[in-house]
Amino acid sequence: MSFSPLIQQLIKALRCLPGVGPKSAQRMALHLLEHDREAALELAGALREAVEKVGECERCRTLSEDPLCAVCASKSRDPSLLCVLESPVDMLAIEQTGGFGGYYFVLKGHLSPIDGVGPEDLGIDRLLDRLDVGEVKEVILATNPTVEGEATAHYIAEQVREMGIRVSRIAHGVPVGGELEFIDGGTLAHALAGRRSLI
Amino acid sequence: MSFSPLIQQLIKALRCLPGVGPKSAQRMALHLLEHDREAALELAGALREAVEKVGECERCRTLSEDPLCAVCASKSRDPSLLCVLESPVDMLAIEQTGGFGGYYFVLKGHLSPIDGVGPEDLGIDRLLDRLDVGEVKEVILATNPTVEGEATAHYIAEQVREMGIRVSRIAHGVPVGGELEFIDGGTLAHALAGRRSLI
Repeated sequence: MSFSPLIQQLIKALRCLPGVGPKSAQRMALHLLEHDREAALELAGALREAVEKVGECERCRTLSEDPLCAVCASKSRDPSLLCVLESPVDMLAIEQTGGFGGYYFVLKGHLSPIDGVGPEDLGIDRLLDRLDVGEVKEVILATNPTVEGEATAHYIAEQVREMGIRVSRIAHGVPVGGELEFIDGGTLAHALAGRRSLI
Repeated sequence: MSFSPLIQQLIKALRCLPGVGPKSAQRMALHLLEHDREAALELAGALREAVEKVGECERCRTLSEDPLCAVCASKSRDPSLLCVLESPVDMLAIEQTGGFGGYYFVLKGHLSPIDGVGPEDLGIDRLLDRLDVGEVKEVILATNPTVEGEATAHYIAEQVREMGIRVSRIAHGVPVGGELEFIDGGTLAHALAGRRSLI
């Protein structure tokens, strides 16, 4: 004996959530059905509404239900700085530091020829069009420090440099609060090569 | 800046799932919106359908979309054995062992005067009505070995004994594969008191 078909269907559907395996999906399904049916309906509604209405910001490509996201719609930011990111979560992470006042461009992925992801999928043409307008003075490449992220940053850097615009890459190094002993060799090498002189 | 209202609403709704905190909810919401909108719609549908159609088995009170669950509908089981459980998951756990051939009764909770959960909320009247029919020869109490589970077992045992039906409680003891060194004193005491003679 196992659960009835509708419960099994729900358990299977819950597995689409990242980090949810068969045991957690089962626990979630039974919890909702036994104790919180109202919340389950609310979740169903929120899922449907978000999927139907959330599109992308037409300027920076982040997730947004309005044509322009909150950042792009703001007039009080510095239009000479443009930060290029892999995903909307990275954008939120940087916003939460409060240390960046420019605008963003979200690639939604990285170059990955094996998976068939090329420059056009990342909207790099739109990025270059935007740079063509001439407002942006510096492009900060904040893709992830992975092989693909580095390759993507390199590819964009080449083209931006040709347009005569300054390009920079976020610093790699020892995380604040980290202990040298536990940091991998690649990061340490970057931290040494990228050392800054103290006055 | 934070996410747009609909995304925030989705993140909040995902927190109804057990074990999902703010960070995982955010990761889940963005994963679905960025990579798997189809699965999100499927999940919304599965949630709605399960909430609308899954009720309880009219005999054993487990979750079921049919009037009788698969176990209660089966004719090939032993009607003289009735196992009383706290929740549908426990029923699945016992079914999966394949070692029990009787029927079940699911309390859906345990006695808890503080939370206002009394015998009528657990369907104990229905359980006694069922025993009145006279088919059941032994009631196996398999509520959890917690204070509330023990109290619930005790309460039911009293009444079943009065009806002249045999009552038993599942054994407490050392789990198979466990090491004595790491087992708590209460369990060890139970294991000693409940020792069985070898031939």
